[in-house]
Amino acid sequence: MRPYELTVAEAAEAVRTRRLSPVELVDSVLERIEHVEPRLRAFTTVTAGPARRAARRAEDEIAGGFLRGPLHGIPAGLKDLIDVAGTATTASSRVRADHRAEADSTVAARLTAAGAAFVGKTHTHEFAYGLTTPQTGNAWDLGRVAGGSSGGSAVAVAAGAATFALGTDTGGSIRVPASLNGVVGLKPTYGLVPRYGVTSLSWSLDHVGPLTRTVEDAALVLAALAGHDPRDPASVAAPAVDYRPGPGTDLTGLRVGVPRNYYFDRVDPEVEASVRRAIERLEELGARAVEVEIPMTRYIQATQWGLMVPEASAYHERTLRAVPDLYAADVRVLLEAGELMTAGDYLRAQRARTLMRQAWLEMLEDVDVIAAPTVPLTAVKAGRSSVTWGDGEVESVSDAYVRLSAPADITGVPALTVPVGRDTAGMPIGMQLMGKPFGDATVLRVGHAYELTGTALGLAPAA
Amino acid sequence: MRPYELTVAEAAEAVRTRRLSPVELVDSVLERIEHVEPRLRAFTTVTAGPARRAARRAEDEIAGGFLRGPLHGIPAGLKDLIDVAGTATTASSRVRADHRAEADSTVAARLTAAGAAFVGKTHTHEFAYGLTTPQTGNAWDLGRVAGGSSGGSAVAVAAGAATFALGTDTGGSIRVPASLNGVVGLKPTYGLVPRYGVTSLSWSLDHVGPLTRTVEDAALVLAALAGHDPRDPASVAAPAVDYRPGPGTDLTGLRVGVPRNYYFDRVDPEVEASVRRAIERLEELGARAVEVEIPMTRYIQATQWGLMVPEASAYHERTLRAVPDLYAADVRVLLEAGELMTAGDYLRAQRARTLMRQAWLEMLEDVDVIAAPTVPLTAVKAGRSSVTWGDGEVESVSDAYVRLSAPADITGVPALTVPVGRDTAGMPIGMQLMGKPFGDATVLRVGHAYELTGTALGLAPAA
Repeated sequence: MRPYELTVAEAAEAVRTRRLSPVELVDSVLERIEHVEPRLRAFTTVTAGPARRAARRAEDEIAGGFLRGPLHGIPAGLKDLIDVAGTATTASSRVRADHRAEADSTVAARLTAAGAAFVGKTHTHEFAYGLTTPQTGNAWDLGRVAGGSSGGSAVAVAAGAATFALGTDTGGSIRVPASLNGVVGLKPTYGLVPRYGVTSLSWSLDHVGPLTRTVEDAALVLAALAGHDPRDPASVAAPAVDYRPGPGTDLTGLRVGVPRNYYFDRVDPEVEASVRRAIERLEELGARAVEVEIPMTRYIQATQWGLMVPEASAYHERTLRAVPDLYAADVRVLLEAGELMTAGDYLRAQRARTLMRQAWLEMLEDVDVIAAPTVPLTAVKAGRSSVTWGDGEVESVSDAYVRLSAPADITGVPALTVPVGRDTAGMPIGMQLMGKPFGDATVLRVGHAYELTGTALGLAPAA
Repeated sequence: MRPYELTVAEAAEAVRTRRLSPVELVDSVLERIEHVEPRLRAFTTVTAGPARRAARRAEDEIAGGFLRGPLHGIPAGLKDLIDVAGTATTASSRVRADHRAEADSTVAARLTAAGAAFVGKTHTHEFAYGLTTPQTGNAWDLGRVAGGSSGGSAVAVAAGAATFALGTDTGGSIRVPASLNGVVGLKPTYGLVPRYGVTSLSWSLDHVGPLTRTVEDAALVLAALAGHDPRDPASVAAPAVDYRPGPGTDLTGLRVGVPRNYYFDRVDPEVEASVRRAIERLEELGARAVEVEIPMTRYIQATQWGLMVPEASAYHERTLRAVPDLYAADVRVLLEAGELMTAGDYLRAQRARTLMRQAWLEMLEDVDVIAAPTVPLTAVKAGRSSVTWGDGEVESVSDAYVRLSAPADITGVPALTVPVGRDTAGMPIGMQLMGKPFGDATVLRVGHAYELTGTALGLAPAA
């Protein structure tokens, strides 16, 4: 096995026991990037120099007996919304052509303190304002969409071009590309991971989280990211928790909520079948399936858009006036539309969120996690803009991709996507596991138990 | 001393030791209401029947050895925004002429559980949307304004027409009338007292709190009101605290912040002199005065209005369309103006609040409380609409009354007003004590130490 193929946990163990040097590991990942990046185009910048320096420092520290932990010397990609001091945060936008971050974001600083080596910044839909990543190809089929907006991060991890990566999730932007590329993505509980130094799309919905090849890896990265930082006003001082799941797969006593509405409506039959099989596997591990009724579903889309659109416009107010032509047309029109929204529209969305969150908390009293599809259809061919469902309903691909992810952003509950198979076209299928606020460890435990039954997809062909 | 003249603490002690029956006490207050109400017009409804029934029940319970606590059998007024099952919550508005509350508000239920006897609902500026209470006369001079919007509650307490009362405070509506009528008013920390069942003016700024004749009384009432209720989404599960201040007046070690800017700008010289004398008294008790710089003062007014106006319009959206003519002209124009505000305007105010709150928390790291005037001028003659300051600046009376109160609503910090004297026209002057979030007990302790130096004004003449 070549080093770039290792998971975080495997690489960490090899580094810890001195069977693998961080320099070898980082070199292997950088070589892999050279090999696949011309086709995948997952990165806005590859930072080979700084990554090699971080690897050498890690090697020296470990040789000197100073092991920082499981991320020490591990190659990571960062979505290019995340500030790293001295480098550009382009947000995949011409607006940021001359940008240079002056300080590290909280998450970059924490990963650096944990010893990670940043191999590059990854592509996003411009300013994260979309469910695709137009620059980047799907790691399993270049002719298909990567999903977004954290498409670069998902593709890099799927292809072995980063051992793990960070993304952001406002309406599904970690989970959608993770699902479409067959990797694990975690949107943590709102407020758990500080967003200081991360370009905002919609601050009341934005989350930062890991994309990895296993659930265990997601837990290792979350452990390094979580914790209060007052520089993010929404950051919560939650008690420290051990996120790393134990070795067992016994789920006896666990109640898995299976939605009787919404989450299986207008879902591709292959996706539904895979997810239901995965739920059966959780039952075989001891979990008890419980039907749940998803509340207030008719308000989900209006609430997501009613919050996101004006907040995004407020964030971009000045640059939209100064350099409107530097935005891509699809993003510019959304930003301009947001300026026309009334305070009343926004407040209706805020109030709907409050009620929806309360209703979800009540629903979650009866279960430990909810299991559902992450997205209703797998990666579509690039350029395809709509899908026609069995009932004749036509839906835009973007609306379809965001539909099942948005509730966890609106309500703030943790949501994990885990690969559960591939469809007949070979495209990965993801199952979403949602939990109670600050129940991230439970969601990770269930996802990990599932993956121990032997379902990981392995590295994507990346061609 | 007649029973209606007693403070809560005095009445509670007399009731507890069986020297005073709740029936006598309530009868005394109801007689006082009969005597003063024709002139003061503090009440929308006097509920003599239910009050007498509550008094008899209290008498029976206490005779049977069941004492509920210091509010058992104590006559209380409730601002007429606060639901009591089976009675109208008129909000002093024609819009609510046919209203009938189906359930108790949290605070009404908690006071009932504590044994209080509701003698009536008190007048407010219509829907609390203003800094006066046009129906009600000042308890010290009927020709002067009562202040508002909790004017009825302040006047009733000042005149002995209620032993204590509840008000609400969105921009100063507890503290302004308390100060203008020479009583104590506490705006607790945002989230400490649940607002379920209380008509909203602006939910991100609304607070419920006590108006009393002493700081000790305010603490006794707060103790009955505070505590989490999930039916108010902003309610916080804060640890239970003993709010009742101890008997001592020693303030050694306490740091009192004295603003070098904003709070003493454009303040009537008599008000300034009284407040500075009161601060000297705190120093004589051992406190150390520390100069503080109030941050972001130029954003206070825009933030207060930018939050309040659209939230109020959102709350009234349906009735404003259905029955616009039933609103008073001044309130209607504000509600209609709010419908024109953009989401961007509102979000700017939200972001300013976030920054202002952070800046206040930093400032409050250096002090335990901040002492300042509550309002820059005492009760003006009814009908007077503006004030001309020494520097030639003309300010509307409403703007002047809200100016020094709004910061504690925007930032959510606790703020207490305590009488510190009267001006040459005989009108009461209030000192405002603000503290750290959930530092309500500290603010009460300082106010109580001050009042033990013997500065209470006594009952107002109420004619």
